[in-house]
Amino acid sequence: MYREQIKVLDCTIRDGGLINDHDFSEEFVREVYRAVSAAGVDYMEIGYKNSRELLPKKDYGIWKFCDDEVLKRVTDGIESKTKLSVMVDIGRVKMEDVKPKDQSPVSMVRVATYVKDIDKAIKMTNDFSDRGYETCINIMAISKHQGPELEDALKQIEKESQANVIYIVDSFGFLYQEQMEYLVKLFRRVLKHKEVGFHGHNNQPLGFSNTIEAIIHGANFMDATIFGIGRGAGNCPLELLLGFLKNPKYDIRPILDIIGREFIPLREKIEWGYIIPYAIAGMLNEHPNAAIAMRKTDKKDNYLEFYDSITDSGYVEK
Amino acid sequence: MYREQIKVLDCTIRDGGLINDHDFSEEFVREVYRAVSAAGVDYMEIGYKNSRELLPKKDYGIWKFCDDEVLKRVTDGIESKTKLSVMVDIGRVKMEDVKPKDQSPVSMVRVATYVKDIDKAIKMTNDFSDRGYETCINIMAISKHQGPELEDALKQIEKESQANVIYIVDSFGFLYQEQMEYLVKLFRRVLKHKEVGFHGHNNQPLGFSNTIEAIIHGANFMDATIFGIGRGAGNCPLELLLGFLKNPKYDIRPILDIIGREFIPLREKIEWGYIIPYAIAGMLNEHPNAAIAMRKTDKKDNYLEFYDSITDSGYVEK
Repeated sequence: MYREQIKVLDCTIRDGGLINDHDFSEEFVREVYRAVSAAGVDYMEIGYKNSRELLPKKDYGIWKFCDDEVLKRVTDGIESKTKLSVMVDIGRVKMEDVKPKDQSPVSMVRVATYVKDIDKAIKMTNDFSDRGYETCINIMAISKHQGPELEDALKQIEKESQANVIYIVDSFGFLYQEQMEYLVKLFRRVLKHKEVGFHGHNNQPLGFSNTIEAIIHGANFMDATIFGIGRGAGNCPLELLLGFLKNPKYDIRPILDIIGREFIPLREKIEWGYIIPYAIAGMLNEHPNAAIAMRKTDKKDNYLEFYDSITDSGYVEK
Repeated sequence: MYREQIKVLDCTIRDGGLINDHDFSEEFVREVYRAVSAAGVDYMEIGYKNSRELLPKKDYGIWKFCDDEVLKRVTDGIESKTKLSVMVDIGRVKMEDVKPKDQSPVSMVRVATYVKDIDKAIKMTNDFSDRGYETCINIMAISKHQGPELEDALKQIEKESQANVIYIVDSFGFLYQEQMEYLVKLFRRVLKHKEVGFHGHNNQPLGFSNTIEAIIHGANFMDATIFGIGRGAGNCPLELLLGFLKNPKYDIRPILDIIGREFIPLREKIEWGYIIPYAIAGMLNEHPNAAIAMRKTDKKDNYLEFYDSITDSGYVEK
């Protein structure tokens, strides 16, 4: 599939950081930046940009804050056309501290939001756009909010927001092809002046196939992570996406190289991938939190008990 | 997705047997039969039915032959509506030894073939149909043979074969949604009096999503294996397929139970799943043999060298 407008965003460090409280070493992040740069990936999302005083006290790693001097240090001296992106959460950034784009190593800011917070997301995104950044709105947990409230939110975004890209985020790894087709067509119909993006999760695992489906129906911004790293089941694997796209500007080789060197040893230490409790959460359209919790107990492979506990809760339809 | 005509065939033992030369214990196979029976799965393919004298001398396990007395022993006393299926290879069965259906525990026989051998497959399938068995033709490596020879083969099958179901087999795990849609529509257009089936492989991994795609376009016979076990990357996971189908005749619970008890320990001993060399073979539309071989060497995680070795061979298009 070749379409010039398609852009790939690597969010290995940002989404992978949700597994380990954003505590990757600078050397590791530098290796990832070197690999995605050599692969010709368009964007690398290197973490969250939060203001320390607006977060609960906890021992976060440096990729929860992405201070400019850290970003400069890990990218220094590496030849790259890859733009840096950061993600922000609503209410966690002191906007008065945000520098204009021309004084920052960051090119793109993505605001993560639920449908219900779309007003705040539009305001925050516009504040970043006013400072010169490329901006995106990432609408999370979309599989739970596909009613008229979603179309209303999209209309409001089209009218009021300066964001360049609006992302469908399948937080629960629930969607399959027919739902993807519906959502991408809805987004494209309402958002006449914006690009559509997709961020999948691999609970079932349909992250890669849903990314293909989004591309088929005209979405142009695609998220992926190296070896599919990410919280719970992980994300669409970058290596598969590059292999599918067949665009000569991308080179899969540096990604294959770093997987064997860095990600195989890493997965011995932290867990992600096709793991049954995440698959159960995905097929039931539920947040993976219960699955993440049970994987830390000594009943981590008692899948039937887990299934019964969440389906018998009275909340989930069997 | 609910459609009454959809049938699920579990091929855990048959396809999983390709990893370990068909050497599962009788106790293990009995547990699998108990689980798929309790889950309401329509068919269980329990192995290959070959004549010993027509095979190369090698130390195969008993599921390469599926002698009647073995099948009776492992199923005895278990309440079940699940029908037994066996797979046969062309030229490996002495037809004069095959009993009529009413003297056998087997209900269905599936003939595995390439497009080029379709004459022999039709003959063999008809011989089994004449003895009273339900029969299928499984067309392997179909991603390499999508030209006019495929449509010719399907026309011949429609005209000359008594087979009930004709399967699309994505042996190399190469297909994605648009190709699936094309193939299922082609099969349904030509095969007016037969059901269409799909057997996916998970190299990329698109086994589950391609199974969904086949269902969307009207295929009714779906292969899957417990926890996705199968040679190389494995197959469409049965637990995901049952979760997707939402048919009240299926119960996912016995499958979740046996995965934790039997398949998690088993995967410590034999390898399958999302493994980069199989993904590379899949995206290049190549047989996984080279990947299987490299996984047995001490360079099993040197993915870049493997990629370069098969793309620089001059055979594979980059």
